[in-house]
Amino acid sequence: MSQTTNHQFRLAARPVGLPKRSDWNYTEEPVRDPGPSEVLVKNLYISLDPAMRGWMNEGRSYVEPVKIGDVMRASAVGRVVASQNQNFKAGEHVFGLLGMQEYAISDGKGLNKIDPNLAPLPVYLSALGITGLTAYFGLLEIGRPVAGETVVVSGAAGATGMVVGQIAKIKGCRAVGIAGGREKCDYVVRELGFDACIDYKAEKVLESLRQHCPKGINVYFDNVGGQILDAALACLAMRARVAICGAISQYNATSGIQGPANYLSLLVNRARMEGFLVFDFAARYAEGVRYLATWRAQGKLKSKEDIVEGLETFPETLLKLFSGENFGKLMIKVADS
Amino acid sequence: MSQTTNHQFRLAARPVGLPKRSDWNYTEEPVRDPGPSEVLVKNLYISLDPAMRGWMNEGRSYVEPVKIGDVMRASAVGRVVASQNQNFKAGEHVFGLLGMQEYAISDGKGLNKIDPNLAPLPVYLSALGITGLTAYFGLLEIGRPVAGETVVVSGAAGATGMVVGQIAKIKGCRAVGIAGGREKCDYVVRELGFDACIDYKAEKVLESLRQHCPKGINVYFDNVGGQILDAALACLAMRARVAICGAISQYNATSGIQGPANYLSLLVNRARMEGFLVFDFAARYAEGVRYLATWRAQGKLKSKEDIVEGLETFPETLLKLFSGENFGKLMIKVADS
Repeated sequence: MSQTTNHQFRLAARPVGLPKRSDWNYTEEPVRDPGPSEVLVKNLYISLDPAMRGWMNEGRSYVEPVKIGDVMRASAVGRVVASQNQNFKAGEHVFGLLGMQEYAISDGKGLNKIDPNLAPLPVYLSALGITGLTAYFGLLEIGRPVAGETVVVSGAAGATGMVVGQIAKIKGCRAVGIAGGREKCDYVVRELGFDACIDYKAEKVLESLRQHCPKGINVYFDNVGGQILDAALACLAMRARVAICGAISQYNATSGIQGPANYLSLLVNRARMEGFLVFDFAARYAEGVRYLATWRAQGKLKSKEDIVEGLETFPETLLKLFSGENFGKLMIKVADS
Repeated sequence: MSQTTNHQFRLAARPVGLPKRSDWNYTEEPVRDPGPSEVLVKNLYISLDPAMRGWMNEGRSYVEPVKIGDVMRASAVGRVVASQNQNFKAGEHVFGLLGMQEYAISDGKGLNKIDPNLAPLPVYLSALGITGLTAYFGLLEIGRPVAGETVVVSGAAGATGMVVGQIAKIKGCRAVGIAGGREKCDYVVRELGFDACIDYKAEKVLESLRQHCPKGINVYFDNVGGQILDAALACLAMRARVAICGAISQYNATSGIQGPANYLSLLVNRARMEGFLVFDFAARYAEGVRYLATWRAQGKLKSKEDIVEGLETFPETLLKLFSGENFGKLMIKVADS
């Protein structure tokens, strides 16, 4: 393998606001052979996630920040090229934190085999991947929806949001999405079966929420923060549950986070707002994937992938997440096989 | 009784910002005899509570607003003067929502007998009253402290806050208060047994919280909102519980509520923020009073009342709650017996 070249994106600087191309170094190095217990993986699809923005900041969070000079942390699916680890064989497909690069060396920890016959590879980064599991555990364990209740999800056309709404429907709830633009809203209603979807770019979110949630919001799954979170808080039903999954509207803020001014709705409605991280449910991933795959096979759970070709597009492709431009699970296709 | 005169404070206008004397009408009318099933009560001590500010606003909340022209809603302890209700006899002492007035007619609903031999009458408006019950249910049911954990409470020298910290100690926790001024802070540490108390007027709350809560905050009981809530959120331990009891710093805001900018600490720490109202625990008040009275008899629970004489002082006395001037449970003494 020593003739093969690996290309990588390494963090060059901690961004202020939106990450720029100059915050990255695009580097090249020869691929090395795997050592004892190691696996060499060729990345095929690499996941682009809002959480990446947080990993680029200095300071305490739920994981260590990516160090300056390190290959950017990223989930990916790939193919084992060579292995000195008895658990993996050349030709097998795997999922793991393989980084924003063409080839990765892994010691096998956190590397999971996937079956390309059960679902196409990109689906292992969307509905059957971390974003699907985030929807599954966040909605069911934090939101705890009951049949007949109203579930609202922001970022409804995003990778997690679209799964949240579909699981809400599977559980017998009313599902109302919030997304940007008519095309996305039409998609989640017509293709995914949401009961309604509010176009935050064209509608007054508060008024539309009141209209589409006449009995109030029982479960609000928040991916965006900011004014949309505030509008949802204003519409909570008694004993509502607000699951805080993310706050993409705030990740690039340079003048401080906008706190939810309507948080006292939690008091008036005896409601609960709770944050969660999917990684805390790692011991139950197999259960989650089993349910998600079953629903997918039954035609109850659809996924949509937004696939951009070429590792070298990474700096610009990442920005699609923050401009609201992506539609479905954003990922980069690095190679065919 | 028809010669006796009743004086009353009625809401004259919905206040903007702090309530002014002109927002009230001080009225006078003859006391009438109780009708069938009715009880005539002479108010002795009337409770002044932060929640009153919310009741003066128009619009939906957890109870109906006080109507313009109505006697101001208020809890009080009093003595039965005359009764046509078989459950109450003249001479008995009672607690209930008797209003900001000298005499009240009640149909007996929500009226509870109290025993002046078990505790002095003012204590039924403090540690054994609604504020004590608010501390009891809010801390134990929402905060759910575990022995060894760190409990932080704002408004620590207020009627609810001082009970929260003392129950935290009874449950084997570390109790850290936040209050305004050295005198209040010294009191809650030396007299009530808190482990520490931060003077928000003299200290940087965030730095002091980090110092006094080296393992982070497991339970934060919030009475104040604003910057102090934000500082507490910044210091949460993993899986912390934030009980939202009130937000006295925000009740008179004329330019919008300040939302907690650090709310994403809920995500990073998988923490929960939950509002509650003591009224939801009404079916368990007897349990709460039993525990509170037992701890009081054992010397583990002290109370402090801030008693101002004279019904006519009400408009000015109410402002002590919002200036931070009151120290202990604020109430007005209307009559000796």
